[in-house]
Amino acid sequence: MSRWKPDAQGRLMSAAIELFDEQGYEATTVAEIAERAGLTKRTFFRYFSDKREVLFSGSHELQRVWLEGVAAAPTDATPLAVVAAGLDPVAEMFTERHDFARIRAGIIDANPELQERELIKLQNLAGAIKAALVERGVSPNAAILAAQAGVTVFHVAFAHWVEQDDPTAFRRLMDESLEELRSVTAA
Amino acid sequence: MSRWKPDAQGRLMSAAIELFDEQGYEATTVAEIAERAGLTKRTFFRYFSDKREVLFSGSHELQRVWLEGVAAAPTDATPLAVVAAGLDPVAEMFTERHDFARIRAGIIDANPELQERELIKLQNLAGAIKAALVERGVSPNAAILAAQAGVTVFHVAFAHWVEQDDPTAFRRLMDESLEELRSVTAA
Repeated sequence: MSRWKPDAQGRLMSAAIELFDEQGYEATTVAEIAERAGLTKRTFFRYFSDKREVLFSGSHELQRVWLEGVAAAPTDATPLAVVAAGLDPVAEMFTERHDFARIRAGIIDANPELQERELIKLQNLAGAIKAALVERGVSPNAAILAAQAGVTVFHVAFAHWVEQDDPTAFRRLMDESLEELRSVTAA
Repeated sequence: MSRWKPDAQGRLMSAAIELFDEQGYEATTVAEIAERAGLTKRTFFRYFSDKREVLFSGSHELQRVWLEGVAAAPTDATPLAVVAAGLDPVAEMFTERHDFARIRAGIIDANPELQERELIKLQNLAGAIKAALVERGVSPNAAILAAQAGVTVFHVAFAHWVEQDDPTAFRRLMDESLEELRSVTAA
């Protein structure tokens, strides 16, 4: 398991995902996570409101990284190209988190309540991308459609990425998914 | 307020939406809804598990009607054309429910918990359309992308439809939204 951050939050995330993998998400307690990370429960609650938040704490970073990519897109890019400009930094962000993402995906697939939460997070992400597009002068309709399409492309590629072995494949899988979207929507 | 069904369920829905419009969703009780409909609370609970379900009881019908359209699409239609084949019967279904839809949209926009529920219902709809496409031989990736795009097109058009005065405009608004999607995703 890669410990991508030497800080307390990173240690807690690594410890949590190790324990979820070993003994299941439901069976793991906050006390066990803190103990495995060599920290206290008090420290755990400084970073996460509950066990579930360990799984969703990356969503803020995902949104920030995606929006940075959107902000850096050329001014003359089409709405979908602007959205897709976020996929490079997103792929980079996820590459070193392949193990975490794979185990996390297994937990979420098995839990309808977590699936709903995931869905809402993705919807919030689409809303933020839409707002960024509108700020760039894209019409609200085109912005919703492009943002939603981009998030679906991401989601489809993500599901493939966690199921295969190469952590570096995410960018390619997103390009394939984007290409498929273009083919599906072609008149 | 149009009472599109003479049966108990339709009367309860009409009574509920009238009361929601007059005095607000939060302030309305099941007892008041039943009374306005000339029925008992007991009858209300035969049709709806709670007040909230009045707002979402149409989602099964939406899904059924959309999937009937999908099933009737020509075998050689592209995945998005198959999805779009559901939009005709869907527009027809909604035309006589413009008042209900408009009042309902106002309630949902003001309530984050209802928005989440709406989101999950739309996601379930996309999942059902995806499954129907896969059954028709469409690849799972193309099926997710087309189904999701179709539901977004519907959702965007719906938001415009409830905000304008012509109940018969829904089909045209969906076509415009579909056209915009094609333009946004064109390479």
